[in-house]
Amino acid sequence: MNRVAVIGVGLTKFGELWDLSFSDLFVEAGSDAIIDAGIDGKDIGSMYVGNMSGGRFVNQEHIASLIADHAGLNPIPGTRIEAACASGGLAVRQGVMAVASGMHDVVVVGGAEKMTDITSEKVTQTLVTAADQEWEAFLGMTFPGLYAMMARRHMYEFGTTREHLAQVSVKNHANAKNNPNAQFRFDISVEKVLSSAMVADPLTLLDCSPITDGAACIVLASEKKARELNDSPVYITGAGQSTSTISLHDRERLSVSDATINAGKMAYKMAGKTPKDIDVAEVHDCFTIAELLAIEGLGFCDIGSGGKFTQDGRSAIDGEIPVNTSGGLKAKGHPVGATGVAQVVEVALQLRGKADKRQVDCEVGLTHNVGGSGGTAAVHILEA
Amino acid sequence: MNRVAVIGVGLTKFGELWDLSFSDLFVEAGSDAIIDAGIDGKDIGSMYVGNMSGGRFVNQEHIASLIADHAGLNPIPGTRIEAACASGGLAVRQGVMAVASGMHDVVVVGGAEKMTDITSEKVTQTLVTAADQEWEAFLGMTFPGLYAMMARRHMYEFGTTREHLAQVSVKNHANAKNNPNAQFRFDISVEKVLSSAMVADPLTLLDCSPITDGAACIVLASEKKARELNDSPVYITGAGQSTSTISLHDRERLSVSDATINAGKMAYKMAGKTPKDIDVAEVHDCFTIAELLAIEGLGFCDIGSGGKFTQDGRSAIDGEIPVNTSGGLKAKGHPVGATGVAQVVEVALQLRGKADKRQVDCEVGLTHNVGGSGGTAAVHILEA
Repeated sequence: MNRVAVIGVGLTKFGELWDLSFSDLFVEAGSDAIIDAGIDGKDIGSMYVGNMSGGRFVNQEHIASLIADHAGLNPIPGTRIEAACASGGLAVRQGVMAVASGMHDVVVVGGAEKMTDITSEKVTQTLVTAADQEWEAFLGMTFPGLYAMMARRHMYEFGTTREHLAQVSVKNHANAKNNPNAQFRFDISVEKVLSSAMVADPLTLLDCSPITDGAACIVLASEKKARELNDSPVYITGAGQSTSTISLHDRERLSVSDATINAGKMAYKMAGKTPKDIDVAEVHDCFTIAELLAIEGLGFCDIGSGGKFTQDGRSAIDGEIPVNTSGGLKAKGHPVGATGVAQVVEVALQLRGKADKRQVDCEVGLTHNVGGSGGTAAVHILEA
Repeated sequence: MNRVAVIGVGLTKFGELWDLSFSDLFVEAGSDAIIDAGIDGKDIGSMYVGNMSGGRFVNQEHIASLIADHAGLNPIPGTRIEAACASGGLAVRQGVMAVASGMHDVVVVGGAEKMTDITSEKVTQTLVTAADQEWEAFLGMTFPGLYAMMARRHMYEFGTTREHLAQVSVKNHANAKNNPNAQFRFDISVEKVLSSAMVADPLTLLDCSPITDGAACIVLASEKKARELNDSPVYITGAGQSTSTISLHDRERLSVSDATINAGKMAYKMAGKTPKDIDVAEVHDCFTIAELLAIEGLGFCDIGSGGKFTQDGRSAIDGEIPVNTSGGLKAKGHPVGATGVAQVVEVALQLRGKADKRQVDCEVGLTHNVGGSGGTAAVHILEA
């Protein structure tokens, strides 16, 4: 297989973007990525788009055709990938495969979601289509409820506290302050998280990622093409993907994410790396408990110890492995289909040394994107 | 790139399947394909699922996680592909890429759609999410209307008649009689097509494919694995995919499908074949006019001559190039996300000599799957 480089990245602001349409979002991020890569539209062989639910958020399916058209990229192949909130991460993996296989030399991978055009009640109804309709959603479960059950079990098994969970939000808000594209650029305190409105016990409003519009885009190229075009390519050396049961009730354990563990193993093996080699990571913190499941499942700390690890500052921006330097889903925002691509944008910027005030010292980075309550996970390893 | 074989196929009945759920459909087709391939679930490295709008038809996104779970395939990677009615064809191409790249040895590709659980009004509203929401759907266009404009233009430019169009339905119904999985297994006449209810002038009810539940599945393997497992593998030697503008008003010509032409060229080039080499084809006849655009764009006859070609019986089952031996979308049925995979099932059966009463003499076959009004096309070439 050919080695695959990231040669360009683009990102819109994340937030309530009332003046931009769904396709506007993608075109903005895509244009930035293409300019950053120093390529022309004619160089692009294929396009992948991660999107969770254009059909329900904006009454639009056939997403890749729409975007190829609006971005002036016809007639290249355009393929939309969906895996709930892991749509972006899976789109990246398909792009990697398209280049690694030799099928295409240059591939654009984008992710986009426009979530604020419908009422928040309808957003909740749409997000829960990522759970099993017949076994969970139909019975009234929503995602805060599913993650709350995982949090309660984690607290019961490992002694994790509400303060441990809150510290994830505090850390990620602190990082987002230095990210000009982030939705929430202000500090919060543990006390503020604990005293915010209860959503699903033990998760309060500030334990939950927001509803967000946004898009992200990367340009991938074969090593040969990357060397021609770019002074500072970053390579994707590991790509892992896994499913687990879509429903919580079918899992052996609620307090561990099997899909994360399996996708991580696949990516580490492909890259020839171990958790100790990772210098910076963007992980899927849709709820604070999710970041603990992530850092434990990826091997940054032992299973059950994520709360203390976070409280001790070991995943802070000046800690031993900075996690979610972008602000994460909690504070950067979570336009669901865009998130997995935006994570690669952040890690690529870190590895290039272009992350400005949030720059950390790094040579190897990791991204981790989850769909639903852990029914899908995608992990990528990037190297400078 | 590795050579890619089809080593197993499975298909549900197509029709109004009130007693089967969305995931039941996939599991049935998938089980048949796995048994046909003579493999075990443990042999499978990855899964792709084509599905247009689970989110709107059955309130279910995160489709591949759901299906991997219900089919007992966790923890393998599962990826849902969407490109409106070309979702299945694009899923096949991603599966081909996954094997060709060496990433996986055995890959399952399925397509499924459950369309009859909601009212036909809501089905129409959902199908039109395959058109440009802002430029077409919002203004009241529906797919019969879009294809009717293409039909009118084809009639104006080339002298195509309503009788020419009707003959597509007559031929495909005649073929479906011999397909035990087809939705409509009865003959119709040109007179009956012309006198059926007008939907969008010049297209009557019997010019239009139906609303259908159904699923299809194939098992792909590397050549090495295929030789170990299977006496009669069929190879996918060409895989082409293209976008065109999603909206009709942006096209240079309404009477030609650019996406079909471009995807066809890509597939022919990859396989080292020309249209004259094709012995049997399944093409996208969502409306009768669509089959004419297909056979012209794929080079089976000259642009504009598809009506006469069909009327002269040259695409009939005993003609020079039998088209839609399965009954096509019109008479076999059109569960939108499943169609592109079901086409590969039919051509694989033909190439294996297992198509029973509809068997034709063939060594090279082609499948052609379209999304929307031609915003996406996928073409595959298969060889015995």
